[in-house]
Formats: sequence, C-alpha cells, structure tokens
Amino acid sequence: MQKRLLTGDRPTGRLHLGHYVGSIQNRVKLQREYESYFLVADLHMLTTKPDRKDIEGITENARQMVTDYLACGIDPDSTTIYLQSAVPEVYELNLFFEMLVTVPRLQRLPSLKDMARAADLNEMPFGLLGYPVLQSADILLPRAHIVPVGKDNEAHVELTREIARRFNYLYGEVFPVPDVLIGEVPTLVGTDGNAKMSKSLNNTIMLSDDAGTVQKRVRSMYTDPNRVSADVPGTVEGNPVFIYHDIFNQNKAEVEDLKQRYRTGKVGDVEVKDKLAAAINSVLDPIRERRAAIEADNGWVDEVIYNGTQRMRQTARETLIEAKKAMGLTGVWNKMKRKAEKRTKQQS
Amino acid sequence: MQKRLLTGDRPTGRLHLGHYVGSIQNRVKLQREYESYFLVADLHMLTTKPDRKDIEGITENARQMVTDYLACGIDPDSTTIYLQSAVPEVYELNLFFEMLVTVPRLQRLPSLKDMARAADLNEMPFGLLGYPVLQSADILLPRAHIVPVGKDNEAHVELTREIARRFNYLYGEVFPVPDVLIGEVPTLVGTDGNAKMSKSLNNTIMLSDDAGTVQKRVRSMYTDPNRVSADVPGTVEGNPVFIYHDIFNQNKAEVEDLKQRYRTGKVGDVEVKDKLAAAINSVLDPIRERRAAIEADNGWVDEVIYNGTQRMRQTARETLIEAKKAMGLTGVWNKMKRKAEKRTKQQS
Repeated sequence: MQKRLLTGDRPTGRLHLGHYVGSIQNRVKLQREYESYFLVADLHMLTTKPDRKDIEGITENARQMVTDYLACGIDPDSTTIYLQSAVPEVYELNLFFEMLVTVPRLQRLPSLKDMARAADLNEMPFGLLGYPVLQSADILLPRAHIVPVGKDNEAHVELTREIARRFNYLYGEVFPVPDVLIGEVPTLVGTDGNAKMSKSLNNTIMLSDDAGTVQKRVRSMYTDPNRVSADVPGTVEGNPVFIYHDIFNQNKAEVEDLKQRYRTGKVGDVEVKDKLAAAINSVLDPIRERRAAIEADNGWVDEVIYNGTQRMRQTARETLIEAKKAMGLTGVWNKMKRKAEKRTKQQS
Repeated sequence: MQKRLLTGDRPTGRLHLGHYVGSIQNRVKLQREYESYFLVADLHMLTTKPDRKDIEGITENARQMVTDYLACGIDPDSTTIYLQSAVPEVYELNLFFEMLVTVPRLQRLPSLKDMARAADLNEMPFGLLGYPVLQSADILLPRAHIVPVGKDNEAHVELTREIARRFNYLYGEVFPVPDVLIGEVPTLVGTDGNAKMSKSLNNTIMLSDDAGTVQKRVRSMYTDPNRVSADVPGTVEGNPVFIYHDIFNQNKAEVEDLKQRYRTGKVGDVEVKDKLAAAINSVLDPIRERRAAIEADNGWVDEVIYNGTQRMRQTARETLIEAKKAMGLTGVWNKMKRKAEKRTKQQS
C-alpha cells in the first residue's frame, strides 16, 4: 500500500513563484510516491479572518488556487483535493483531540503568537490557539503518514505526533504517527528584495501572469542599489535577480557568464533582467498553457474539488467510525439504538 | 410559539435528593412553560475524563439518569432528551464559536480552574478551557431562550450571550441571546453535614433508594454534635436533619413541633429522624413507583433517548444550515457543487 501524504493551503487565490518553488513543484513529484490529499483549508482561515467578506471570497480563491495546482501538474485522479469545511468529520475529530492536549503545550508554540500579531489581533482567539489541534485532525483524518512542511509548521506536526500517540495510548491503535518531510521552502525572496514573496507586499510574480507582465515585473526588480550604471561592478550574492536566475534559469552557462560580467561591470541590468524574464517565462509557458485549457473547460475545477471532497468524506467516515469505536463512543450510541429499535418493533 | 429551554447533566448515573431539589423538581414545572431540551452531556465528561472506562460507563449511567428524570415526571413527549455526542452538528457549531472568543476571556472564568483542580489535572486541558464554548454550542443549537442554571454556571451563560451577539453581529441574526433563569440550587447539604450532597462523598440519599435504605441513611445522619442525649437542648439552625425537614416534610406543624422540642431537649433524635425518613419516603414513593414501571418496560428509556436524539438532530440540522448560510459557508460549497454537477451532466 502507498503511504498517504497530507498537505494543504488556505484558499488565498492565485499562486505565485514563491509557492511554486516552495511547495507546488515538490508536491508534483511527491504525488507519484504517495497517495496524496490536498486540503483547501478554509476553516484555518476562520482562525484569523472570520469575517463574512473573507468567507465569501473562498469560492473564487479556492478555484484560482486549485486551477494553479492543476496547471502545475497536480493530477486530480491520483491526488484528492478537497474543501475542509465540507467534511463534517473533521469537526468531530478536532473536538476529541482538544481533550488530549493542554493549554500550556499550545501556548509554547511561537508560530501562533506570530500569526495573531500578523492578523493585528490584540488577544489570542481561542480558535487560533486550537489551530494546531485542527491541523492534527486534518492530518490524521486521512491517516496520513507523511506531511511535507516548511520550518514554520514543523512544530505543529510534532504536536500531531503527540496527539496520535496519546489517542492510541488511551483508546488503542487507530492513527499512524506521521512523519515530517522537510522540504517546503516558503520563502522565495520578493521582487522588491523583501525576504518573502507575498501578495500583501505586492512583490510577486504570479503563475498566471502573462509573459509581458512577467517581463515588466522583472524589469522593475530590486538589484544591487550601489550599481548606478552598467560599468559599475555589482554584487551577485543576495541579489534577487541572481537568486531567481539560479532557481529558474536552466541555462547554467548563461547564468555564470552573466554573474561574471555583473561582478566586473560588463553587463547592463536590462540584459540580466530580460534573460531572467525569458527563463521564468519558459518555466511558466506550459503552466499558462494548461491554465488556459482548464479555464476553457468551465466547471472542471469545481468538479475536481467536489469529487475530491466526496472521496475524502468516504475516507473521513471510515476513520471517524474507527476512532469513535476505539473510544467507546460508538458503543454508547449503538447499545441505546439497538435496544430502542427492539422495543419500537415489539410495540408495533 | 413557546420559548425554548435548554438544560442538561453529565451522565453520572442515578440521581439523588440534591439533584431533585436543586434542579429536577424545578424542571418538571418548567417543561409546561417551555419547549424543553435536556442534554445528556457525554462530551462534557470528556473534558475532564477522556478515559475509555469512563466512556464505557456512559450508556448505563445515561439510562439510570434518564430513568430518574422520567420517574420524577419529566415528560418525554414534550421534553427532548438527547445524547450530545450523537448530534454531529454540535461539533461544527462549536468550532465556529471557538473563533469568536479569546483565550483570556475563557481564562477569566474561575469555574474552569476549579474543575481542573477537582479532576486532579496539573495543566488545563485545551478541551476544558473550551468547555464553556461547547456549552454555548449546546445552548444555541436548539436556539434556546432560557437556560436554568445554578450560580456556578451563570458566567458560562453570560459567555453564550456574548457569542450569540458576536455571531449575529458578524453574520446576521441567527441566534437568540439566551437568558439565565437562576433557580437551580445545586447544593443540598449532605447527610454527613458536608455542604454538598455528592456521590463521591457517599453522603447521599438516592431517588432510587428503597424505603428501608432511606430510613437507614436518615438514621445515620449528622445532627447537632453537642447533643449527647435526648434531654440536651439542640440547635436547629444549620442542622442537616432540620434542613431536610424544612424541604421535604409537608406537615409544617409537625416540623415546628419537632423544632421546638429539639431546642428544649424534649425529643429524641430517633423520633426526629424517623419522621424525616417518613416524609422523604412519601416524596419518593410515587417516584419509586414510576421507576419500577419504567424498569419493567425494557427498552423504553433507550427509546426516549433515541427518539429525542433524532428529534434534536432535525432541530440541529436546521440551525446549522441557517448558521452556515449566514456565515457564507453554505454558499461556498453550493456554488462549487452546482457548477460541478452541471459539468458532470454536460459531459455524460
């Protein structure tokens, strides 16, 4: 049997190059090795943004994000892409898990304070403190063995491992203790030189940007600020344009040549940037092509999410039944149900 | 339309006189004024006792408790008695509510620290800190207007009111802001003089005790310790035997006579106690009679809980649909579903 993998994203809309190199590219490979589950994590969104206008945006944001998944090569026949809030079992498992972890344990996770601060919340919402518990329910609902994460979520998978062990200890072996697969790198430098590419910083190149937009975005990229003209020697290290060249330009000889000329003041920014734009566009061309085909097939993305959610619900039901049986809760209800039905039958 | 009332108990088994005078008697009256919902709160139990052996005890404990409800005159045709864990909607509403309350708000509730201490828990379980949120989901799921509580739970209903208001503010009017009905008095003095009658203190008289047991329990009751023989004047105030006389003995003249003779050292403890036992037995006689009839009708109690749970699920579904519609979450899923189904149809 293939091992199961779970990963996911909040439905924030179209994806950018940071997502691509940080996770999507990796997931496209991993889906061949693992039975993959991709969570469209709309309930996670509620932990910091419970407003109706944010919820209303989920449909279109999920569609755009999943369109990007598919355009990048995620195969919906082998990967189950599903809407978290539409799987009722996750709420149940979440509550059971909430009993198995303490408040101080959750308060020791630094990531949550960062999230609260980033969302301008003065006081920690209870649901945000419980976010890693919900993540544990997400991971253990399909009984995933593998969770590819970036460094910022490693501690949450550690908590999931604790919860799985605690559940198994209390009620019997139901859940695998999942392993972290470090490899996601969520921090591609932004076009402005900011440490992180992010839509809110407006320093992105989107996977769905057309070739001209990519060219324009690259042309305006931040480079070595000391290099006021083409004949001034420049610094390659930490220079966003060369970081991108290293990642996206497959022509390594060209990159070496550009670096050397840049260091010695023998190349203009325009040449360096135009060659980068061409390199990025050759990565994005097949993605754009698939995106166009997906968009032409009206409803397909919805169908992918809908079918994936139905598939996930089947899996979720199986897990929840087993978990509740192990806890003894199924027995409580079934004993009453059977006795009730027996009497009803006798009376009629 | 009748207003709705919600109340409930953890399934801890048979009830005692403390429950009777503290809440059950009151609820029997209230069920005529309000459309009543009684929660068998097995999920609450998990907040302090998540062990399998405790869960396994729920079935029999719930049966015994509900048998006492019915024996006391709770009418299952007008009152919906249901098993909390068997209503999936409560888990969902609970998670949505968790987003609407902060950690410091919950930490200010002193009751939770007391509960943790009473359960010998060194660190606060996350699920226990969330217990008042779950209670809010319990109350608002049938959209109850009235919650009869003892003083120790008043603050939890106040939190429910805040959550109802916050939800309505964010998403539109879905929930009534419920009112507390102070009146439950959970602290009948124990037979040993301890402030609270409680099974764990072994100072109870159970509603299902037979007449002889009641007599024996009353005979061994704590009274004025300074009164070493029948001719020593005794103190009536705060004396458990006279507290019980005041509550259970309908013959007020007899009680006055006993009090006066007690104060002046003109009555033996045996007479005072035997008259109390007779008074309690005349309260318990019809309850015992109904209990015997209920026990003879094998499966009826299970049927009451089963049918009540089915009825509650219908109500719960309606509330949850409305809540999710107001939040915009139903829209998210339905838009995708419709588009998916349309494409599937076109393709076939």
